[in-house]
Amino acid sequence: MVQMNPTVGDIAGNVRRITGWLREAKKAKADLVSFPELAITGYPPEDLLLKPCFVADNRRALQEIARHCRGLAAVVGYVSQSDGIDPKPARSSVVQAGAHELYNAAAVIADRTLVTTYCKWYLPNYGVFDESRYFHPGKRLPLIRLRGTVVGVNICEDVWLPDGPTGFLAAAGAEVIVNINASPFHLGKSRVREQMLATRARENGVLLTYTNAVGGQDELVFDGNSVILDHQGEVIARGKAFEEDFIVADLNMEPVARARRTGRKKLLPKRLASVVEVYAAPLPSVQKASARMVPAVASGLEQLEEVYLALTLGVRDYVRKNGFTRVMIGLSGGVDSALTAVIAVDALGAKNVEGLFMPSPYTSQDSYEDVAELGTRLAISVRTIPITTLFDHYRQTLAETFEGHEPDTTEENLQARIRGNLLMAFSNKFGHLVLTTGNKSEMSVGYATLYGDMAGGFAVIKDVPKTMVYDLSRLRNLRGATPVIPKRTLDRPPTAELRPNQKDEDSLPPYEILDPILQAYVEEDRSLEEIVEAGFDRATVARVMKMVDGSEYKRRQAPIGIKITHRALGKDRRMPITNGYRNS
Amino acid sequence: MVQMNPTVGDIAGNVRRITGWLREAKKAKADLVSFPELAITGYPPEDLLLKPCFVADNRRALQEIARHCRGLAAVVGYVSQSDGIDPKPARSSVVQAGAHELYNAAAVIADRTLVTTYCKWYLPNYGVFDESRYFHPGKRLPLIRLRGTVVGVNICEDVWLPDGPTGFLAAAGAEVIVNINASPFHLGKSRVREQMLATRARENGVLLTYTNAVGGQDELVFDGNSVILDHQGEVIARGKAFEEDFIVADLNMEPVARARRTGRKKLLPKRLASVVEVYAAPLPSVQKASARMVPAVASGLEQLEEVYLALTLGVRDYVRKNGFTRVMIGLSGGVDSALTAVIAVDALGAKNVEGLFMPSPYTSQDSYEDVAELGTRLAISVRTIPITTLFDHYRQTLAETFEGHEPDTTEENLQARIRGNLLMAFSNKFGHLVLTTGNKSEMSVGYATLYGDMAGGFAVIKDVPKTMVYDLSRLRNLRGATPVIPKRTLDRPPTAELRPNQKDEDSLPPYEILDPILQAYVEEDRSLEEIVEAGFDRATVARVMKMVDGSEYKRRQAPIGIKITHRALGKDRRMPITNGYRNS
Repeated sequence: MVQMNPTVGDIAGNVRRITGWLREAKKAKADLVSFPELAITGYPPEDLLLKPCFVADNRRALQEIARHCRGLAAVVGYVSQSDGIDPKPARSSVVQAGAHELYNAAAVIADRTLVTTYCKWYLPNYGVFDESRYFHPGKRLPLIRLRGTVVGVNICEDVWLPDGPTGFLAAAGAEVIVNINASPFHLGKSRVREQMLATRARENGVLLTYTNAVGGQDELVFDGNSVILDHQGEVIARGKAFEEDFIVADLNMEPVARARRTGRKKLLPKRLASVVEVYAAPLPSVQKASARMVPAVASGLEQLEEVYLALTLGVRDYVRKNGFTRVMIGLSGGVDSALTAVIAVDALGAKNVEGLFMPSPYTSQDSYEDVAELGTRLAISVRTIPITTLFDHYRQTLAETFEGHEPDTTEENLQARIRGNLLMAFSNKFGHLVLTTGNKSEMSVGYATLYGDMAGGFAVIKDVPKTMVYDLSRLRNLRGATPVIPKRTLDRPPTAELRPNQKDEDSLPPYEILDPILQAYVEEDRSLEEIVEAGFDRATVARVMKMVDGSEYKRRQAPIGIKITHRALGKDRRMPITNGYRNS
Repeated sequence: MVQMNPTVGDIAGNVRRITGWLREAKKAKADLVSFPELAITGYPPEDLLLKPCFVADNRRALQEIARHCRGLAAVVGYVSQSDGIDPKPARSSVVQAGAHELYNAAAVIADRTLVTTYCKWYLPNYGVFDESRYFHPGKRLPLIRLRGTVVGVNICEDVWLPDGPTGFLAAAGAEVIVNINASPFHLGKSRVREQMLATRARENGVLLTYTNAVGGQDELVFDGNSVILDHQGEVIARGKAFEEDFIVADLNMEPVARARRTGRKKLLPKRLASVVEVYAAPLPSVQKASARMVPAVASGLEQLEEVYLALTLGVRDYVRKNGFTRVMIGLSGGVDSALTAVIAVDALGAKNVEGLFMPSPYTSQDSYEDVAELGTRLAISVRTIPITTLFDHYRQTLAETFEGHEPDTTEENLQARIRGNLLMAFSNKFGHLVLTTGNKSEMSVGYATLYGDMAGGFAVIKDVPKTMVYDLSRLRNLRGATPVIPKRTLDRPPTAELRPNQKDEDSLPPYEILDPILQAYVEEDRSLEEIVEAGFDRATVARVMKMVDGSEYKRRQAPIGIKITHRALGKDRRMPITNGYRNS
């Protein structure tokens, strides 16, 4: 199994990576090697799929990959234009638009021949997924006879359903199911997934190989964690979490065959008999079985640790795949910017992270000290540019117009936007990517300044609730020899320092109350009544709901960030801005 | 037909509007009144549909509407939880989450009884549409016997397909098809749509009523243009374009019945016979036919005029439905901000539009004069706040850090972002909505400053290519007694005035070349080769494609704007930011 990290759209680069791994597979004397879902295009290719030339390029890439499969079989994710063996694409790059029927497909190549293609049956079209926008569902159940073993192939979602292609392929005779994936991470998913895979292997009495992608793509992080399970659901080999990996295992088919002979035979539903197709994979007989075996190691990663790794990989890949090397972060002395900086350093190295501290008249001495201390501990360069003079000039410029009006959030936003402007000026002049530092609690209630602290290219902790920001910080502090985030940063009450003695709790409920309300409302679609019944104050819940509803326009203009929860504030959650619904 | 303007989410308000129209329908002695698709929730409700309490509220609203249907029948768009007659929802607002199977449905109510529900068969899931994210497709074909006439109901997309529910309902016996819609505007669509409707009526020998919504909802504008066509495809009544309307017509059923007796009988495919259901609509016999008839008037609106009306309605509804009254626009002396201001004045009245002119050292005398002239002609208040001092202070603040670096786009962006900051300060202090002024050509190639001229809540001409900005301006100038946009604004070469003697053509191909390339690449998914073959210079095309691909991150943080083309830069076009594809 090749747990690879493709780049969306970079077909040529992905082909190079795939053919490189094919050489490794040959060295390891593999009979069969599997790559992730849509390995050729990267996942999700989104509206690139609407470009006929993109689809044609992807199909030509498959032909090229096939030429590298001498003496072994490979399962490769790509975009097919038919539910069957895809005819060879035209050589010309001028492709007729329209008549554009696409399938999310797995090509089975054996000894340079495209033997067959399996097309995904179940197309996820919820959460972050839009597969029905692009793909038609497959209807076939191809089986491949490979060195005497019957192999069935399917894709991602297909393995999640008890009454789906996995069971049908097994009932039709498959002894091994090769399932390929691009399954994005969210909190707790890897555990649920592995339980499901064990159930699926056991109930069908098949060996099950689960090949996942790894790496960051915009909002998504694919976590790897590929596994091979035997017919009793026991994990016999496992790939790394959040890293590329190449997993080799000898599959002992004897117990599967014995279980099949003695066990109760599964029956394929009659209506599906006609969609079963059997192919022979023409492999030369010189091939020998592998000599290497990756033992299954227990997944020792705690959930919080997984989140930290997802954030680190998400930052590293966004920066790298978009051609940046260095990032810049506005440091405030608070925990959000501190954690963001630490993640960035872990992702990119201290030399590629620069801090910018922009104190105002309301910045406390603690903040000055904590920023300096953080910079020292992380060994990153930190510039200081006070914004007091610029802030004064804005106020003078606006004095006449604003005469008779008390200072309000306008003046707070001015400060945040001066900082945004300075950060972007650095970015423009020196080519840094600006990382923003807002957490999910703030982003949910709109406690952030559009074009101010929200200005930047990538919002690292956008899906991390404030309470989890603290948990992650403490976790990271426990890791090294000395804590990286100053203790006071973790102990001080959160403040935006945009007016004298401001505290977050002046505007928001305490985060220990806010975060569970947000989880219920934003992630679980609970009604006011339900949240109140769970033990929260009605007025507080109503106020939080109103803040969430009223800040949709801000979120729509926010930079993208890394999904780590069941429902992130991005493609996962598609709310109208113009929205008259008030559930209170 | 009630061509109404619902507000998404505002169920209580939509019910009030619907019951108000029901009173009108009773006054007009209508037998049958139809409302648009999802009239109760507004369209598209997006992820509000994932909230069980929202769906329950919508179903309770249907019960309330039914109580107002004494003595007449109504077809009302709502969200059903079953493909059949929806059982009464629970009274409590605490609804069990999950088990959430939804249908895009049309309730048929007759004399206060919910007779049946039709559920949409064809769920659009392309372009701006995400219906497969929420809905299951319907499978039934209910027919309703209403005062001796057999009526079939279906929804939007269902009428577009020749082999769809419209034909099946007709073959099963329907004489009138009541099709309800929320069909968003794009350039040229209304004409295509009406031709399709005429074909559908003629080929099935049915009377066809097409009830569309009207109004703006975020990116979308629904254009109205409801029609009734006879069984020969002739329009016999027509609703207004871009306005609410109430269309009453007496349908003469005799010719339909005669044609059916003498014509070749259509056959319902056998497999569908079992999904036909026939209901009687229990209307009291006292009802009399209507005395009023709206004659069909030819749709005299030119395509460009339609675009102008769409933009005006889009602005008016975004402002109104989001609780704003006044807007603020940064005026530069250029055509984009001039056209935006004119549209805003047409949408909201001069007293609700304020201009802010923010000259820099690079602002020409022409711009000073043209802004003043535009303000006078539009009779709007225009404030002037020079940004020169602020710009100098930023440069001083950054001087040390930027030493040894030549001025570049950094300094241009600084100016744009100072302006963005000032506009937002006004918005924050006085509650104006800031309208941005970027056109589609700029937004496509990224010739705009994020957080600068892109700062604001609503991007009026975001989907209007620059060449069409000129066309619309000239059209509007021809309308009134005197032209509103100064002639020089239309004649001067376009410039951002962010450095001395800057012209757009220093950075971009002339718009007469750029716009067709953008149309081919962005709207039609053409490859480099295809665009070159259409007669464009290869290097220019490649450069434009690179600019489009490289500015995806800016578009993702842009405010939403009004869709007027086949493919707008919003929900219509979902490109990855991290994207290694290079078709060149």
